[in-house]
Amino acid sequence: MKLAILFGGSSFEHEISIVSAITMRKVFKKTELSFIFIDAERQFYLIEPEKMKSNFFSSAAYKKSKKLVLKNGAFSSEGLFGSKAVVFDVLLNLIHGRDGEDGKIASLMEFYAIPFISPRLEASALSYNKLYTKFLAQNLGVKTLPYQHLSKNEERKLTMEYPVIVKPVRLGSSIGVSIVKNDQEFDYALDVAFEFDTEVIIEPFIQGVKEYNQAGTFTREWELSIVEEPHKEEFLDFEKKYMDFSRDSQVLAATIDDALASKIQDTFRKIYDPLFKGAIIRCDFFVIENEVYLNEINPIPGSMANYLFDDFEGMVERLSQNLPKEQTIRINYDYIHSIQSAKGKA
Amino acid sequence: MKLAILFGGSSFEHEISIVSAITMRKVFKKTELSFIFIDAERQFYLIEPEKMKSNFFSSAAYKKSKKLVLKNGAFSSEGLFGSKAVVFDVLLNLIHGRDGEDGKIASLMEFYAIPFISPRLEASALSYNKLYTKFLAQNLGVKTLPYQHLSKNEERKLTMEYPVIVKPVRLGSSIGVSIVKNDQEFDYALDVAFEFDTEVIIEPFIQGVKEYNQAGTFTREWELSIVEEPHKEEFLDFEKKYMDFSRDSQVLAATIDDALASKIQDTFRKIYDPLFKGAIIRCDFFVIENEVYLNEINPIPGSMANYLFDDFEGMVERLSQNLPKEQTIRINYDYIHSIQSAKGKA
Repeated sequence: MKLAILFGGSSFEHEISIVSAITMRKVFKKTELSFIFIDAERQFYLIEPEKMKSNFFSSAAYKKSKKLVLKNGAFSSEGLFGSKAVVFDVLLNLIHGRDGEDGKIASLMEFYAIPFISPRLEASALSYNKLYTKFLAQNLGVKTLPYQHLSKNEERKLTMEYPVIVKPVRLGSSIGVSIVKNDQEFDYALDVAFEFDTEVIIEPFIQGVKEYNQAGTFTREWELSIVEEPHKEEFLDFEKKYMDFSRDSQVLAATIDDALASKIQDTFRKIYDPLFKGAIIRCDFFVIENEVYLNEINPIPGSMANYLFDDFEGMVERLSQNLPKEQTIRINYDYIHSIQSAKGKA
Repeated sequence: MKLAILFGGSSFEHEISIVSAITMRKVFKKTELSFIFIDAERQFYLIEPEKMKSNFFSSAAYKKSKKLVLKNGAFSSEGLFGSKAVVFDVLLNLIHGRDGEDGKIASLMEFYAIPFISPRLEASALSYNKLYTKFLAQNLGVKTLPYQHLSKNEERKLTMEYPVIVKPVRLGSSIGVSIVKNDQEFDYALDVAFEFDTEVIIEPFIQGVKEYNQAGTFTREWELSIVEEPHKEEFLDFEKKYMDFSRDSQVLAATIDDALASKIQDTFRKIYDPLFKGAIIRCDFFVIENEVYLNEINPIPGSMANYLFDDFEGMVERLSQNLPKEQTIRINYDYIHSIQSAKGKA
């Protein structure tokens, strides 16, 4: 199989997308990889696999790579003798944050008919925005923590008790997130979060809450990862998570009983199906008094959460063969013809 | 001002988008218009204004027009002597249904940095899907009718009393919509709706309910249309609505008292701000016992609901000068640099 890895993007998580993409070179052993980079100006570049090192990007050396243009069915380079398409079977969207997780890349791939692994447009819009994730969970009957939603121009009045956690509505990787224990910290946390987004979501912060991560996908059947218990500080900070994006070796499953594991997996399946078909996602859960709460959906998890799977490479290939198809719409100009006949023009 | 009208698209409403676009030629009197057509294969064409007649499209004569490619900042035609950009200040997204209303065009315009009038990505995703519109209304404290959500593979069990109205979750212009009075009709209505979508929404059908439409936008200030009371049969069918897309003359305001009018307008503003900034939308409301219920959001209304406004052309120009700006994200490779120094590479 030939797989194109799309990475970079105009995102606060641009750099960790590069780290994720570099990690993919170690993870895929039989698959032929192409690398397509989106730089800060949203120009596409074809990156030779042996150039996949972080300083190739940070030094701007990538700018000498072949530029690509997206057209119907292909990424193409334009040359003197016409355009040449990058050849691959399926594209893996590995852009964390804006562009990749918000639905833009899904839109572009669908519009230009490129087969792709990623949450589709609606799944992206709902999971990228933490407020909309609450709507979704509520509708599915999945528990989440209570929350308060606050916009930049609203009065800064907290309706719950400290400690709370303040998160920008639209960012991943813990960027702009703070734990807050009093009014002064609350004010500062809002200043920080509003640097990144016009809206925040506030939730109770539960010291020592049990956290479990479940990744998975649906190919011809469910392929769920082990349940992971992430090791954490007070909460995962960005630098810590950042290192996480380069993980390529397997971790041990959390030591939980089968009943809890299957509760977590059932909740994962409820969230995934059918909205996330075509994607490999990771859901982060809290477990409180033996009840499972959705904390976050990671629509494009760091290094695709490869380290949680037994056979990540095989799974990507199976998923590639079972991607959702866009509905065919036949356009036949029936209505225009009928109006024209009514007007005596046809 | 130079305005590009984007129309067509891979949508069940492709033809009515053409009708809407043709109508714009009559509506804009001082503005210089370009027309960019997306055909069923999602190829872009630059259409000369004098060719803007319905049979130019239904006869496939448009295929001889100049093909365009979307690149950063421009739609360009490729010629022997390099590429040439179509020159305009702002693009008006006039694609009804899929591509235009679902967020794909918003994604493309934002990705490629083309200034555009249209709901943005999140606003599109929430308003294109009638289930998500319910989530949104609920969160905003806007009343809607009770509903049942049903997927294609679920048991066809109705949880409310007849008569009901069955609607595909993702279509506009009354396509696939049925009013249902008994079990047999219900089954048939689901067959019809599932031709168009994998999910439907079912609501009580209230004979003779009062309907009012309110269109508007926010430029430097609120610019709201008159409140219209649409004339209707049992409900507006597609052919009827279709003719509606070519309307270019003003209608009379509904005869309602000021209190109800301002209730409708307050509800409109609540829905619009801030999610729909950058767009001209129309909201269709029911009024039941003097309470306002949101029926539907039309994120890209037929012929932009121009006939509801006093000064539609001026409003489009004012909106063009007050479009929301995408957040600037500076990418500086700080994290990669810091990792490189930690590894002794920098």
